[in-house]
Order: sequence, then structure tokens, then C-alpha cells
Amino acid sequence: MKNIIVGQSGGPTAVINGSLYGVVTEGMAHPEKIEHVYGMVNGIEGFLNDQIMDMAPLSENGELEFVRTTPGAYLGSCRYKLPEDLNDPVYPKLFQKFEEKSIGYFFYIGGNDSMDTVSKLSRYAAGINSDIRFIGVPKTIDNDLVNTDHTPGFGSAAKYVASVVREVAADASVYDNKQSVTIVEIMGRHAGWLTAASVLARKFKGDNPVLIYLPEVAFDQDAFLNKVREALKTTPNLVVCISEGINNGKGTFICEYASDVGVDIFGHKMLTGSGKYLENLVKEKIGVKVRSIELNVCQRCSSSMLSATDLTEAIGAGTYSVKAALAGETGQMITFIRHADHPYELSYGTADVNEICNEEKAVPTEWITKDGSDISEEFIAYARPLIQGNVVVPTKDGLPVFAYRK
Amino acid sequence: MKNIIVGQSGGPTAVINGSLYGVVTEGMAHPEKIEHVYGMVNGIEGFLNDQIMDMAPLSENGELEFVRTTPGAYLGSCRYKLPEDLNDPVYPKLFQKFEEKSIGYFFYIGGNDSMDTVSKLSRYAAGINSDIRFIGVPKTIDNDLVNTDHTPGFGSAAKYVASVVREVAADASVYDNKQSVTIVEIMGRHAGWLTAASVLARKFKGDNPVLIYLPEVAFDQDAFLNKVREALKTTPNLVVCISEGINNGKGTFICEYASDVGVDIFGHKMLTGSGKYLENLVKEKIGVKVRSIELNVCQRCSSSMLSATDLTEAIGAGTYSVKAALAGETGQMITFIRHADHPYELSYGTADVNEICNEEKAVPTEWITKDGSDISEEFIAYARPLIQGNVVVPTKDGLPVFAYRK
Repeated sequence: MKNIIVGQSGGPTAVINGSLYGVVTEGMAHPEKIEHVYGMVNGIEGFLNDQIMDMAPLSENGELEFVRTTPGAYLGSCRYKLPEDLNDPVYPKLFQKFEEKSIGYFFYIGGNDSMDTVSKLSRYAAGINSDIRFIGVPKTIDNDLVNTDHTPGFGSAAKYVASVVREVAADASVYDNKQSVTIVEIMGRHAGWLTAASVLARKFKGDNPVLIYLPEVAFDQDAFLNKVREALKTTPNLVVCISEGINNGKGTFICEYASDVGVDIFGHKMLTGSGKYLENLVKEKIGVKVRSIELNVCQRCSSSMLSATDLTEAIGAGTYSVKAALAGETGQMITFIRHADHPYELSYGTADVNEICNEEKAVPTEWITKDGSDISEEFIAYARPLIQGNVVVPTKDGLPVFAYRK
Repeated sequence: MKNIIVGQSGGPTAVINGSLYGVVTEGMAHPEKIEHVYGMVNGIEGFLNDQIMDMAPLSENGELEFVRTTPGAYLGSCRYKLPEDLNDPVYPKLFQKFEEKSIGYFFYIGGNDSMDTVSKLSRYAAGINSDIRFIGVPKTIDNDLVNTDHTPGFGSAAKYVASVVREVAADASVYDNKQSVTIVEIMGRHAGWLTAASVLARKFKGDNPVLIYLPEVAFDQDAFLNKVREALKTTPNLVVCISEGINNGKGTFICEYASDVGVDIFGHKMLTGSGKYLENLVKEKIGVKVRSIELNVCQRCSSSMLSATDLTEAIGAGTYSVKAALAGETGQMITFIRHADHPYELSYGTADVNEICNEEKAVPTEWITKDGSDISEEFIAYARPLIQGNVVVPTKDGLPVFAYRK
């Protein structure tokens, strides 16, 4: 009889705990093979400090049902990179701890860096002939992992962004007898998937957001200003969505143009986002009322716009990871294989984690219009199925109930 | 047979269209007295330019049901102040337009400034012996109108703020092996009602947000830093909520301390919010990881956290305003009278609009703890009933459906 250990790593998402729920419930469904399901608190870093917890009580006291829809990372997270050198003493230390806890199956829910951890541990295991199985469960709102159709966390983040942009547009249009520009800055340093999802906010052809800019295309400030001038003619209250990572195509982020703005009264360099920079640019060059909005961390942790499709798939990825490990797989990440957009059909698979870690999947350039200011129908067909369905989050006293470690 | 005209003014809320729905449906329920229900597009400013629309088709084609849960201001808004001098020629111009359209009842949904409009029009009407009845329907997320227990719009905004702060706290606690401070800046320039609502986010005694600062109490930077140092001992991932309007008690906003920060590359003065200023202060003086988050316009326009209580009351205020006008009242604002907190009991009333406009209701100082860093149980008892109940907003393709003028 072996035990499972599961951890979470990297930034939060709205459904990362859904995957945890999947691993835990499926792990506990095989009492003939698995004795305990343990969680590592604060990822591999916490595990190294013996921070582990038994997940069984959560199932017994009903708390696990609340974990399912709690955003963040129930087990806590870390940003800890294992050494490149597999001869580093941390590896035998880790594997001794695995042995002490009779770990047979290791699951790590995370993005790129987490897959790097899975890669290293599985390679080290192969080197010492360990039979512990290491599986990565994908998670990232950025949707930038390769060899999978999409990633859990993206659908809910996309649904959040699209609905918030629709609300921001409603808010902006209230004074439709005056011209205005609202610039919404959306997360995504290198890949524009989440910003592209703002296109779903349109209620009709030509609706806001009229202009959308991703980091995949070099950003030209003059072309941008001309587009804004043109768009204002038909849309007096213009909404523009931009990725935080828009850049000049030569390695300079747009926000860096404002980086010589000065220092604050404490001598700190004033950090200005791309949205704020463009707000000032439009104010200066066009002279209309401008506002920039930085969507806050709720992009990745709001439970108010959970996509039922996303949550189901996040749980499914967790469940499938246990099945794959029990079937003998190791050094793999769970992948999503799409068979059709409409009606949407998906199955789960696995792919070599070594081919996934340290790679980034960008939005295909053919899904971006030629002038770089809009998103194509292909993207819409791709993204729309991922935001379908609402999840009823349990509430108490008028607010969502979230699980937390006591 | 007379007609109704209804308008919206000032900033958007999540339920201002609920009040519009209330006025329109109740107006159309009295065909023996009321022939048409008209909407003024962009408030009194639009009305002066003859921008009016018949609301009947919206009822016939079913669009009105979507208006009910659409945030923003369906009719559009304005920030137009009528002249103080009632001898100004704009008044006879307005009343001539009222006569041309056979207006017998005028409803204006808004905050302080809108009540000022109702006050002036009703006083002018009295002066010329006009029998047109003018009624104000309250609306503001700021909850700062006097002579009413609370205002429509506050409950949904409070529910949004409390749930977002709970999410932000979940997000911040993910790296609970490292200390951090998250500062959330909430709307409210002069009254701290909405910031106070963040107290509802606590899941247990001592939970985040540990510190809450309102504009009603003079903000002392040293005392604040000491509070943060103390709180970090028990709460490694501290969340602090502040009103945008926190000030030194002598008329200087905290954000103004940063106003000599410098100019950007276009020569614009860099505007820094109070949250950003405190972020830098904590970074400088305490040295932990700090982030500041400015809740964006969704505070006032999110449909994702509609309070069923708030929406019901917003519609009720609209309905009651028509009944009051038909009963002969004029120069009044609809008020909420609370009879009990638990179980919550409310009735509607009216109050002289002249006593309401240009007044602001602050959070009572006895509802703020002595050291000015927390909110009392009395506030919680007051606010909790207002965020109860969820509203199912109609969706299509995975997103909320919003009504808009075609």
C-alpha cells in the first residue's frame, strides 16, 4: 500500500482547488491501492520542511465540498525552483522524505515552473530506479502551456474578463453624450490569451471593446492613436483592451517607455503600467477624457464568474491524473484534447512533461487581425465553449463560503 | 390623461435600472391615469435637447426584463446642475417642454445632485402653480443620503466589496510562508460606508481585512504603521482596506502627500491614489512585500454580486415613487424606514427633498472603533441584511445579458 502526495504551486486560479478536489476524491476512491492522501502545504518548499497534512478529515467533515469552489490555493503555494543539477543534495533528501511517508504517487498542480519540478523529480527517479510516479496537473489563467488544447483556470479567467469588460463598457457608456476612452489592462506578460478573451464581451458587431492589443504583435503607438481616433467616430465611449505585456516587438515593454517618469517621495521609481502609459498618451495626443483600469487579482481568483466547463475539466484533470498514475504513467502532464467546438467535445490525455516545461504557447498570429488591433472568429470559436455554464458557489450570510486551512 | 417622464443622473450603480424598471412597470399599471411613460435620455440635459424615448415598446418586446438586472444607467446619465437662480430662462423652457409632452409626473433617479434638480424643479413648479409632481428616487453606492436608512445601490456594492476582499485575501494567503501586506482602496471620497462593508469579508474573528480605515476619522501615518507591524505578527498576509478619501482630519487627503511626486514624460502631474501612497510608505518603513489594489468601476456596476435585497428595494423605490406621485406628493424623495435588523423589516416613505439635497451622511463615529482602525458590531448588524440573497442574471453564451439602447 502506497500513499499519495499532492501539492499546488505558482499563482492562484479560480479552479486550482477543483483539481485538488479531483486528485483527493479519486485518490480516496482506491483504498485497495492507496492508504493515505496527503497534501503538501506551500508546495515542494513546504514539503521539504515537513509541512504535510492528511486530506481524509476534509472529506469526512464535508470541508472538501467547499474546497471544490474556493479560489486561490487551499494548500498554499510556493515559487521554489529545484536545482538544475540532479546531483544536488536536495534530491536524495526529498526522496528520503518520500520513502518515510511511503509515497507512491506525486501530483503537482501548476504551470510551467511546476512542470519543471515534475520533470526533474521524474528524471531523478528514473536515475535511481525509484518507482514513485510523478504527474503534473496543468493550471494557469495564462493558457500558455503547450501540447494541450487549453489549461484549467483559463476558462474561468476568460469568463471573468469578458463579463467585467462588458460591465466596464456599460459603465463607460452612461455619459454617451461625451467622448471618452477607457483602457483596460489585462494579465498576460508574454501570451495574450486572456486579453483576447475580452472579444467575447461584444454584444453585437462593432461593440466594445472595439480595439484589442496582444503582446504577440509589435505595438505601434502612432497606429494605435490613429485607430483610436477612427473608432471614436462611431463609438463615442470607446473601450480598448490591452495585455500588460504589449511591447514594441524588439523586447521593450510599452510600460517601460514611462519608466523614466521619476521617483516618488521615498526615492522609489514610479512603476507605471502599460494602461496608465497609454492613458497619458491618448490624453496628450487626442485630448478626450481617458481612464485606465488595471483588472486586479480577481482575474485569477474570482469565484463569481466560475465557468462550469472549466471547473468540471479542472476536477477531471485531477481525477485523470490519479488514474494515469495508477496505470503506470510517470513524467507526464495531463492534457486536454478537443474533438469539436460545437457541440464541444473533449477528452483527457497525457504528454511528456519534459516537452512542456519551459515552453510557452502564444496566440497564433492568424487568430489576430492583420493590423494587430482585433481578434479573429477562430479565436472566438476556440474560446467560447470554455466559458459556458455557471457554478453556484455555496453562500452564507450573503457571501461565498471559502474553505481555508485552520 | 397625463404622461410620466423618468430620468437617471449621476454615476452608475448595479441597481439603478431596477428603479427604472419599478417606475416604468408601475407607471404602465395605471392606464386610467397615465397614457405614456417616457424616458429622458442622458437626464435633464438630454431632455433639454428633446432626447426622449417611449418606454412601452421595451415592455412589449420583453427588453424591460433585461433592463431590470443591467448595471449602469439604461437611459444614460448626465452631470448637469440646474441654475440656482429660479429666474433663469432654462426653467420656463423646461416647463414648456413638459407641457408639450403633457407631463404630469417627473421622476429622477440619482444621488445628491439629482435631488437638487428635483428640489429646484418642484420649487419652480410651486412658484408658477404648476401641478406637475416631482419625485426623487434615491440611488448611490456611497449610501450618503440623509433621512433614509440606506440607499438603493449600496447593498450590491457592499456585497461586491465584501466578496472581492474575501477573494483578495484568499489570493494573498497563498504564499503564507512569506509576509505580505495588501492594501485595497475602495470608493468613497467623504463617507466610508462602502469601505466599512469590507468588514463583512471576515470568515472568523481576527480574519482579514484586519485593518479598515474610513475618511470619517483623521488618518495618522505613524499609528497606521504601528498597527501594520502589530498585525503582521499574527496575520502574515495582511489585508488592509482604506477609503480613497482617507485624510489627515484637516482637509488634506492622504493621496495628496504624494502629489509632488513629479510629472510624467508628457508633463502631466502623476496622480497617485491613497493606496499607492501607503504601499510605498509600508515598503519604505516596514520593508515587507506590499501590493495595492484599486477596486475598479465594477464596485458600482458589477452584476455578478447583485444583492437580491438591494434589487428588490431599488425596484420597490421606483414603484413607490409612482404611487406617491399619484397620491399627490411632490418635492419628495423616497426613503427607506427600517423597523428591525433581524429579521429584517423595511417600509417605504417620503421625505422633503430640500432637506436631503446637498447634505451628506457619514458613518457614525460610534460605529468605528476608538483607534479608528476597525468597524463595530453595530455596523455589521446594520449592513448584513442589505447584502442578502443572490440574483440570477440572465445569461447567453456564458455571459450576462445586458440591455442597451439600440
